[in-house]
This record gives sequence, structure tokens and C-alpha cells, in this order.
Amino acid sequence: MIKGKFIVIEGLEGAGKTNAQQIVMASLQAHNIEFITTREPGGTPIAEALRNLWKEGIGDEHTTDKAELLMLYAARTQLVETIIQPALDKGIWVVGDRHDMSTQAYQGGGRGLSDDLLTSIKTAILGDFEPVLTVYLDLDPTIGLERAKGRGELDRIEQQHIDFFHRTRTRYLQLTEHNPKAIVINAAQSLEQVSADIKTKFEAWLQENHSML
Amino acid sequence: MIKGKFIVIEGLEGAGKTNAQQIVMASLQAHNIEFITTREPGGTPIAEALRNLWKEGIGDEHTTDKAELLMLYAARTQLVETIIQPALDKGIWVVGDRHDMSTQAYQGGGRGLSDDLLTSIKTAILGDFEPVLTVYLDLDPTIGLERAKGRGELDRIEQQHIDFFHRTRTRYLQLTEHNPKAIVINAAQSLEQVSADIKTKFEAWLQENHSML
Repeated sequence: MIKGKFIVIEGLEGAGKTNAQQIVMASLQAHNIEFITTREPGGTPIAEALRNLWKEGIGDEHTTDKAELLMLYAARTQLVETIIQPALDKGIWVVGDRHDMSTQAYQGGGRGLSDDLLTSIKTAILGDFEPVLTVYLDLDPTIGLERAKGRGELDRIEQQHIDFFHRTRTRYLQLTEHNPKAIVINAAQSLEQVSADIKTKFEAWLQENHSML
Repeated sequence: MIKGKFIVIEGLEGAGKTNAQQIVMASLQAHNIEFITTREPGGTPIAEALRNLWKEGIGDEHTTDKAELLMLYAARTQLVETIIQPALDKGIWVVGDRHDMSTQAYQGGGRGLSDDLLTSIKTAILGDFEPVLTVYLDLDPTIGLERAKGRGELDRIEQQHIDFFHRTRTRYLQLTEHNPKAIVINAAQSLEQVSADIKTKFEAWLQENHSML
């Protein structure tokens, strides 16, 4: 049995991750590739409970930066061990809405947690597990947050100061530029052009990397 | 301002931690030492929510060993950063029902998680933060579980196979024997004798280590 592949969509709020996930799914369907979708943090009942606790806090209490980091990794390892890895082992692909790069970008870049701390936890928990491809939707956060606001009330992350998102974007770009396992999409273009770019680049990646096509 | 001291009570289920905590508290009161008490996992609303999620799971889903470890450390750092460290900084002592040694014993000894994993997470999150004294109540788990059963329904940990508790006890003994920051109490004695032992040894420790007496 050939193993499935793990593809992740990354980007700031309002960058168009849902649209991107649908385009990737449509491509996989067109090639008769079986897949499931996940979202992080979350994707299992326990991981979703961790997501809610992290987002909402309890009363006036919110997680410290280190507690936040550990809860995000608790949700991630629960999802990887119980959903993602078993699917990949059965030859099923996984299309994830966010994964570890979000933590590197938001908690590392945005919150400024040290590389030492992030690397220690990541290595201890995930080892060498990582997606074969990340589709990163790059967008100026001032544009992304305007789009996200249009969708309703801002959550805990979305209420951060704009500088937080600029630091997060800078980290995303550091992680994806010159990264052979990443496709960077200019998400400031029209939705039509963004969609066309994702489709073209993802199809090219599939042709090059998926021996069964 | 002289900093407070962090004293922790450790031991298996049914070893008598509640009684030991009360004896330590009575000693501190007799010396007019201000203190607060904590319990782990838990001690803040978010940490208690993590405790419940870890103990109960959701439906049929329970945490994986790695997710459990991260949730325990998330609860711990939340408690240390928001309650324990601020108290110590104000000169207030803290008497804790369990702390990091429980994780070393239960998740390391009991579950068999690797020393590498445990050390990586502990070092990354707690650094050199540790109690100045641990009072460990040593007891054969067959006796402790009988006592715990008498208190009502067994929780997730208490339902483990007896071998789990023997491995946990072995690790506790490795961590406390020949440890100058630990007092080991033979908790198989009568409650009266156990209480007398704790009081005598804790008072001796106080005289030796607390310059204000």
C-alpha cells in the first residue's frame, strides 16, 4: 500500500484558506485520489475542546503564552496520532487547514516565543512528521483582517494588534520562501486569479510528485 | 522581601496526601508563615478544565500519551505562572498537592514515556523552577488502591492495571531516595505514626532551612 500524502493550507486570517482547500480538493477528486480534510487546532472532539478553551479562556482567565503553545501541540498530536497518521497509513491523503507552520508563525513570529522553546517542543512531539506540501497564501494583514471582520466577530487571535500579524506574516515568508515543500500564492490578487494560481501550481506539483498520475 | 518557598506533597492514590498537606499547613501556621495551597493538575479555572478534559475525555475519545503529557504541562505552567510564582515573589509559601514529580513518576514510570521526551518538555517549560522540598508518601499500591476505592468511583488513572502503579512507585523511589530535597515517609504505618513522622521531619527541615525561625 502506497502511503497517503499530507497537504497543508496556511495563511493569515482572511487570506482565503477555505477557497484554497476547495481547489486542492477538486484537483484530488479529478485524479480520483481519496482524501480527508482536517482543521487545526481541532479536528477531534478533544482537540476541538482544547481549541475552544484556548480561544475563549474561562471568565477573565486566558492561557499564558507557554500554556497556549502546549495546548496547541496537545491538540496537534491528538489529531496526528488518531486521525492523520492512520489515514496516511491507509493510503488516504489529508488536506489540512493549518498545521505546525501556523504555530511557528503565530507563536514564534507573532508572540515572539523563542526558537529554542518552539524547536524543543516540536521535535519532542512531532519528530520528523511534516506535510509533503504547504500552500501558503500570502497577504498583507491589513487586507486580510478587513476580510475577516466582514465575516463577523473577531476571535482572540483576530483581536491582536496589527503588528502581531505583520510579525506573523514575516515568519511565514521566512518559512516558505526558497522552501521546495512550499507553494507561495499572492493572495492579494482577485479571487479568480488566486484560484487559477493555486490550481496551476498544485497540478504542476501533483504531476511532478505523485508517481501514480 | 524574602521569597516564599514551594513545598510539594507527592504519592500514589490513597497514600494520604490530604492528611500530609494538613500537617504541613499546621506547622506553617504555628510559625506564622503565610501560605496558599494548590493542587495539580488544576488550581486555576483553565487548569481545572484541562484536568477534567484529561480525566474524562469526550465520549469514547481519550487523550494519547503525548497529548496527556502536554495537557498536564499546559495546566502546570498556567498554575506556576499565574498563581505559584506570583505568590512566591510576594513572600507567600505554597503547599502543593502534586507537582512535576507526579508527571515523572506516572507518565515516565507508569506509562513508560521516554526520559528524552520528559526532559525536553520539562526543561523547555519549567527551566530550573522546582520545589525546595517534596514530602513523598511511600506506599505499596495494593494498599493505596484499596484505600482509594473506599472513597468512591475510580477515575481514569485509578483504573490502570496494578503494574502501572508499581512502575510509578519505583520511579517515585528513584527520584526521592538520596535526594536532599525530599523527605520519604513510610505511609504503610498507622495514620497516627505517619502523621507524627511527617510533623517531626518537616519541623526539622524547617529549623534547618528557614532562617527566619
